Amino acid sequence: MDVFFYSTLLVLTVFFRKGCHAALLGNPQVIDMTYTFDDTTVIWPKREPFRLKDTFRGYHPNGYYYEGSYYEGYEHSGTHVDAPSHFCKDKWRMDAVPLERLMGLAVVVDVSSKTKNNADYTVTAQDFQDWEEKNGRIPDGSIVLVRTGWDQFWSDKRQYLGTDTTDTSLLHFPGIDPEGARWLVQNRGMHAVGIDTGSLSTGQSTNFSAHQILCEADIIGLESVANMDKLPTTGATVYALPLKIGEGSGGPARIIGIINNPESGGGRDEL
Amino acid sequence: MDVFFYSTLLVLTVFFRKGCHAALLGNPQVIDMTYTFDDTTVIWPKREPFRLKDTFRGYHPNGYYYEGSYYEGYEHSGTHVDAPSHFCKDKWRMDAVPLERLMGLAVVVDVSSKTKNNADYTVTAQDFQDWEEKNGRIPDGSIVLVRTGWDQFWSDKRQYLGTDTTDTSLLHFPGIDPEGARWLVQNRGMHAVGIDTGSLSTGQSTNFSAHQILCEADIIGLESVANMDKLPTTGATVYALPLKIGEGSGGPARIIGIINNPESGGGRDEL
Repeated sequence: MDVFFYSTLLVLTVFFRKGCHAALLGNPQVIDMTYTFDDTTVIWPKREPFRLKDTFRGYHPNGYYYEGSYYEGYEHSGTHVDAPSHFCKDKWRMDAVPLERLMGLAVVVDVSSKTKNNADYTVTAQDFQDWEEKNGRIPDGSIVLVRTGWDQFWSDKRQYLGTDTTDTSLLHFPGIDPEGARWLVQNRGMHAVGIDTGSLSTGQSTNFSAHQILCEADIIGLESVANMDKLPTTGATVYALPLKIGEGSGGPARIIGIINNPESGGGRDEL
Repeated sequence: MDVFFYSTLLVLTVFFRKGCHAALLGNPQVIDMTYTFDDTTVIWPKREPFRLKDTFRGYHPNGYYYEGSYYEGYEHSGTHVDAPSHFCKDKWRMDAVPLERLMGLAVVVDVSSKTKNNADYTVTAQDFQDWEEKNGRIPDGSIVLVRTGWDQFWSDKRQYLGTDTTDTSLLHFPGIDPEGARWLVQNRGMHAVGIDTGSLSTGQSTNFSAHQILCEADIIGLESVANMDKLPTTGATVYALPLKIGEGSGGPARIIGIINNPESGGGRDEL
């Protein structure tokens, strides 16, 4: 036991305790992975848009300033969570989803190079296996985020969905292949699967098989997730907190990513 | 340098790194501080209730099962966030509030013993000073949660608000005294102030002075916060993530508390 020992112990203790509260006491990077809900919110064909209504902004007779509005929208528009009940009978509705399933270490699977000339690309088991080859096994309790690069089209509904008409046969955007979804649920224990397009199932899907496979396994879905490119491949924590709608099939959500240790560049050892 | 030194170093490193990801790799306690949005949601007099509309639950002609609904509500009903623009002109609206202001170390100021026989109790500077006497200075960047005990009345609108009529002069519930709010903004650097009643300003307030003082200082408000009694006095982290409503004056929120280190009992040294 010498001075060197105790000083090292002190430095280590301070360093790691600080790290423990990096999201608060340090200067953490907090990423908003949520699109604003307003008249720019991309809406599925035939659905009504998100709206603020009966907005009051001004002075009350008692002298104070006041603003307030009603809001309305569809559960599955904008950045949102799919509860398993969305496509699976008798599965968790929104308020029944355990909170723990809405958070976890982020795993960003970037397939954007494959979607460049193929708006109908579907993400396969091989894509997840290729990711693991480079980055290690997808951890239990993680949130798998499929990055197709489709966020670049958010401001243009026609490009984001493939159509701005009500004809759903014209929907074109990448999604998860049923075979890829099946590999995930049979082999890995993630909490949730998210995507930067409007739907986990590809635009050309007519039966939403990827959704069905995921919800049958109680996997939570995250859709129209923003700013995935701002997360490291691993090393961030995602909190996907939806409106707690009683008996809802999903809900608009605030999704954030906290980069656990920006200095590390989010390397694999952060897991 | 001896074996003892290196083994201690290893144990310390593993212990604190584990702590860093306690919310994920350990078995953290995650508290849902949010009431479900449904027909039990307490609504301010004269406001419309929260509603699900046009719900579809059943089989699509293509053979798959599907559920989906529209939702609608008022920004300031149920568990929600007040943006500073709610009572202060030209201040941040909901989508402009920096994400960092919506998270922080929880400071639970329990005044429930003072509200037992006084539904109109207002929380004073002395209450905050008494808390600091026992627990230390309210940290910068924290979320101050005022616990009045009013959550016990949530299921009974008449008791929670003091009235189930539209006569706002009959509102009775505890709130923050303007003098208490002024002491906080002039002396401490918290991110947000929350309460377990329907409003930061007491039911009998006619000009919402506590709100005005807080929003003028860009302090975020949290109202109808649930389950404060499940948090330790200090040692938890709160994430209060509202619906990101474009130009909103606030929004329904999912508020969670993560108990950083359950083993510690949330002692002051956790800060």
